[in-house]
Amino acid sequence: MPIGDGRALLFIAGQVPIKDGKRMTGRCPDQVNIEEAQAAARVCALNLLAQMEGAVGLDRVEQVAQLTGFVLSADGFGEQPKVLNAASDLLVEVLGDAGRHTRAALGTNSLPLSVTVEITAVVVVRTG
Amino acid sequence: MPIGDGRALLFIAGQVPIKDGKRMTGRCPDQVNIEEAQAAARVCALNLLAQMEGAVGLDRVEQVAQLTGFVLSADGFGEQPKVLNAASDLLVEVLGDAGRHTRAALGTNSLPLSVTVEITAVVVVRTG
Amino acid sequence: MPIGDGRALLFIAGQVPIKDGKRMTGRCPDQVNIEEAQAAARVCALNLLAQMEGAVGLDRVEQVAQLTGFVLSADGFGEQPKVLNAASDLLVEVLGDAGRHTRAALGTNSLPLSVTVEITAVVVVRTG
Repeated sequence: MPIGDGRALLFIAGQVPIKDGKRMTGRCPDQVNIEEAQAAARVCALNLLAQMEGAVGLDRVEQVAQLTGFVLSADGFGEQPKVLNAASDLLVEVLGDAGRHTRAALGTNSLPLSVTVEITAVVVVRTG
Repeated sequence: MPIGDGRALLFIAGQVPIKDGKRMTGRCPDQVNIEEAQAAARVCALNLLAQMEGAVGLDRVEQVAQLTGFVLSADGFGEQPKVLNAASDLLVEVLGDAGRHTRAALGTNSLPLSVTVEITAVVVVRTG
Repeated sequence: MPIGDGRALLFIAGQVPIKDGKRMTGRCPDQVNIEEAQAAARVCALNLLAQMEGAVGLDRVEQVAQLTGFVLSADGFGEQPKVLNAASDLLVEVLGDAGRHTRAALGTNSLPLSVTVEITAVVVVRTG
């Protein structure tokens, strides 16, 4: 969606951890541990990057403005930031400063097909 | 909120399924089934459309940019996309291509007054 | 992120209730009551205001466009709007009409470090 000055906002749909056709599922920490949840978060981040590449190309990403991540969590689990750091770090590794973002780390009792993590993003991209 | 080029972003508050003054409540799938949850999602979508109509008129909707839907879910329920498709489909039926959107489908253990579905949207509208 | 006409969108990361270095934690209503949850929501709002002040200065806030609030909730709890009103009211007290916003009030079974409330915001600010 154009926002003037040769820029646009790219709203990316909720990305889930599907890798080689296989879903990474299960609740943290009783069904999957934090390391497994971090691996799922990294796959979500890779899928976010694939969406950016498909939409405009990674070289046109000006800034990842906002990341909202949900971790499938048992009651009382509170390490969502640690899980989602794996996604945040990957975005910065790949995009450099353009990958830095504000973030909301959230937990929930249920996600589509019981995936471990779901992440959405809003990205500022260059269109000019 | 104006974004240049005669366009604005319309942020719509979380819409809940209230129809004829009656709330559609209950957790999926143990208190309401998927068809009932889909009916609730459709009412949320109608209320989103009513908000667009009230704010700028449906003919000025350029694109529904983002839909975020929460389904009141029992632990382990994972059919949120199926529930929310009822809302997504209605937006496209009414708005055509302008109703197509990116979406995050999420579950949660609790929603205001135990409504079955809550949906927010960001919409690009023409103001010129 | 600039959006033309001397305005920018400010995406604020999820703010949690930390006051004097102490986190306000616990699930509503079985571990904390509504009044305690409202106090936590107010602290989240204060932290949102601190983010706006730090980023651009409160006098440059044109409109709080969107507030998304999550309340750590026991199954079946449905008073999230009442809890979050404490945050909404504070924004309007401080910012006047610029503090009015659309809102999504949501519940969840888990939040980082079991804080009682987490709130994100998107704010339109003047940059010119």
